[in-house]
Amino acid sequence: MQVLLCSVKSTQPVRSDFKLYLAKAILPRWHGKQGSHCRLKKLKWLPPQAHEVRLKILFTSLCHTDVYFWEAKGQTPLFPRIFGHEAGGIVESVGPGVTDFQPGDQVLPVFTGECGDCSHCKSEESNMCDLLRINTDRGVMLTDGKSRFSIKGKPVYHFVGTSTFSEYTVCHVGSVAKINPAAPLDKVCILSCGVSTGLGAALNVAKPKKGHSVAVFGLGAVGLAAAEGARLSGASRIIGVDLNPIRFNEAKRFGVTEFVNPKDHKKPVQEVIAEMTGGGVDRSIECTGNVQAMISAFECVHDGWGVAVLVGVPNKDDVFKTHPMNLLNERTLKGTFFGNYKPRTDLPGVVEKYMNKELEVEKFITHSVPFTEINKAFDYMLRGEGLRCIIRMGD
Amino acid sequence: MQVLLCSVKSTQPVRSDFKLYLAKAILPRWHGKQGSHCRLKKLKWLPPQAHEVRLKILFTSLCHTDVYFWEAKGQTPLFPRIFGHEAGGIVESVGPGVTDFQPGDQVLPVFTGECGDCSHCKSEESNMCDLLRINTDRGVMLTDGKSRFSIKGKPVYHFVGTSTFSEYTVCHVGSVAKINPAAPLDKVCILSCGVSTGLGAALNVAKPKKGHSVAVFGLGAVGLAAAEGARLSGASRIIGVDLNPIRFNEAKRFGVTEFVNPKDHKKPVQEVIAEMTGGGVDRSIECTGNVQAMISAFECVHDGWGVAVLVGVPNKDDVFKTHPMNLLNERTLKGTFFGNYKPRTDLPGVVEKYMNKELEVEKFITHSVPFTEINKAFDYMLRGEGLRCIIRMGD
Ligand SMILES: NC(=O)c1ccc[n+]([C@@H]2O[C@H](COP(=O)([O-])OP(=O)(O)OC[C@H]3O[C@@H](n4cnc5c(N)ncnc54)[C@H](O)[C@@H]3O)[C@@H](O)[C@H]2O)c1
Ligand SMILES: NC(=O)c1ccc[n+]([C@@H]2O[C@H](COP(=O)([O-])OP(=O)(O)OC[C@H]3O[C@@H](n4cnc5c(N)ncnc54)[C@H](O)[C@@H]3O)[C@@H](O)[C@H]2O)c1
Ligand SMILES: [Zn+2]
Ligand SMILES: [Zn+2]
Ligand SMILES: [Zn+2]
Ligand SMILES: [Zn+2]
Repeated sequence: MQVLLCSVKSTQPVRSDFKLYLAKAILPRWHGKQGSHCRLKKLKWLPPQAHEVRLKILFTSLCHTDVYFWEAKGQTPLFPRIFGHEAGGIVESVGPGVTDFQPGDQVLPVFTGECGDCSHCKSEESNMCDLLRINTDRGVMLTDGKSRFSIKGKPVYHFVGTSTFSEYTVCHVGSVAKINPAAPLDKVCILSCGVSTGLGAALNVAKPKKGHSVAVFGLGAVGLAAAEGARLSGASRIIGVDLNPIRFNEAKRFGVTEFVNPKDHKKPVQEVIAEMTGGGVDRSIECTGNVQAMISAFECVHDGWGVAVLVGVPNKDDVFKTHPMNLLNERTLKGTFFGNYKPRTDLPGVVEKYMNKELEVEKFITHSVPFTEINKAFDYMLRGEGLRCIIRMGD
Repeated sequence: MQVLLCSVKSTQPVRSDFKLYLAKAILPRWHGKQGSHCRLKKLKWLPPQAHEVRLKILFTSLCHTDVYFWEAKGQTPLFPRIFGHEAGGIVESVGPGVTDFQPGDQVLPVFTGECGDCSHCKSEESNMCDLLRINTDRGVMLTDGKSRFSIKGKPVYHFVGTSTFSEYTVCHVGSVAKINPAAPLDKVCILSCGVSTGLGAALNVAKPKKGHSVAVFGLGAVGLAAAEGARLSGASRIIGVDLNPIRFNEAKRFGVTEFVNPKDHKKPVQEVIAEMTGGGVDRSIECTGNVQAMISAFECVHDGWGVAVLVGVPNKDDVFKTHPMNLLNERTLKGTFFGNYKPRTDLPGVVEKYMNKELEVEKFITHSVPFTEINKAFDYMLRGEGLRCIIRMGD
């Protein structure tokens, strides 16, 4: 089995062949270090337990959240760990008593799950399942508090219930959405995180009205999916904000009508946007993970009715700061995980949007590499080149 | 004419008799200073200009906002000034070209106006009129940038377009709501600020659903009106939070079901409330003006669906701080002026709620004094005794 094992914080991911000793160590170029080949002990891989399924991952991609938690910027570091959470695969086997899934089902694993029973799962508004919501500190399965991966008896940790940088992975049934078996997994795999997150942040949370102006901070896949959601909602102006001018070229294909690079201005970007729009945008959606961008995204919405939605994942010690008068002036501030979609209930419908050609997914896919070249996906993301890179597990 | 003139920051309000030299200086006991009688030069009082009406104020009351701006805690101090903005009166005369009002109309002046023409006035959501929204730094009329009060040629400043601590005052027509002539002004005068603000913060902004739990921070008139709005919405638990235990007795008459005094707990009050409610309240409404209470009010709402609404007026240098993850966890944060009511369009309807006995106003009125005893109203508020004190101008 092939797996990208991140053994320590921010460095040294190694690929191992399951049941074989190490074939080759892959050290990513993007952190600027050269590493030597290193020995990896046999990686053990346990079968799914109650409420679990084992998936054969066919395609995965890289989302910025993987990078943040690998860099462990402030967040609790938990290593060795298998990252990856944007993926598609088929059910390989099911744990005892599991009846919702059968081997061969085509599925998308999701970093935030849906137990179906808790107050969040029963609420119309929330997708923050009490049992299965995103938990970046837990590296084990809920059933028994243990990992399904180990080396020499020591656990190799899971990541957000998915760990898709591995040919095989074990997930809780609540974290897996069964989708149309006709959907091409090499495309719809990216709906399992970034694209649905951005799309839902617009359609379900910011809810721009026809003719509204919308600012999108961060023009990666998440931000451009938010722009796509704004466009589908009938927004007439979509203002893209990014520090990286390369992003502006790609963004043109996503209905972004204007661009602002905060580096081009002396004034804070919220003031620049307020001037462009006669007082502020109707909606803004922050997809950067940078806390200053979060503050700007909030402060650039129009008083009286503006709504700002935070999507980017902050660092552990970040503090969101604003003058309370910005709120009293009738602005609204919200945040969302996974665009407020309930993964099992709603994600199959997002896949159908693609199948019905309401939603274009191909344009988010700018690269494709075999798993052995996963480092390239990191390179593209960290250089800000391209949007999503499909990583083919089967090659 | 009688007027409470606040000549300097936080001290020395003096009552003058219009067109007479000073009769008596009234120094409020609440700031702990004794003052000597002082001379007041003749107060000049000009007629209303275009777009203006002159009101004879019959009843006014004291809202905490008057105290804040008199204390000028951080806000721009602008003195000498006539405070007061919660009041009822009749139109005494109208400026040239004014057709909406006639002498004798029964009206409520409001600190935030409605021009009827701007994007806010045309929006269904906002009451933050571009022209007439609350402006605490402007002490002059819009028509000509001048005050309608002066002493020895020097301006005496207006306050938020109302200045109701005066037998006669001049207001922009957009800041005056014409109400049912049968409504008793000695009661409905308090609908012109605090009670409508709290009520609207619940009914129009927090919008609790039947069965919801609601926390109200600050149990003054504004907070208790918010509690009343929550009760009318069908909230099943209303948790009152105040530092002053005297408030809890009054609050019982307002459907508040539980009380929390942050001083009784070692833990932050948001944690206490989260424990009481299995993770947080569905809605919270902050009516204190204290920035720590604002933060607690936000952090005590349930993740997934909780909505917090800020109403209290902050100090100029206050900073609202929270970890962005509290937002990402799908909480919503909003703020409001005047409970999102449009003053001219909506306030007459709030008065009708009282006339139809849907809304009880009497229970907010705990004291009544003649204008000469206005100091007592300050005493009551600063000691946290009672809710609203009606100040009778006519006596
Ligand atoms: N809330 C969720 O459910 C959820 C789900 C997926 C991803 N995310 C988060 O969304 C964010 C975007 O993810 P992505 O995969 O699109 O990442 P990405 O790296 O492809 O894109 C991020 C973009 O933001 C830009 N950027 C960074 N700082 C900026 C700033 N201060 N101002 C303007 N632009 C700035 C970068 O140049 C980049 O183009 C990340 O924080 C990720 O962790 C959140
Ligand atoms: N947004 C608006 O349109 C608007 C309109 C009117 C009033 N206000 C503001 O609403 C607030 C309430 O006004 P009011 O007239 O009811 O005042 P009030 O003084 O009668 O009541 C305020 C209450 O808050 C309590 N309090 C203060 N700090 C607290 C804390 N940290 N935690 C818990 N309780 C605390 C006090 O003990 C008091 O009982 C003020 O800030 C006022 O300026 C805002
Ligand atoms: Zn992701
Ligand atoms: Zn659940
Ligand atoms: Zn007030
Ligand atoms: Zn207006």
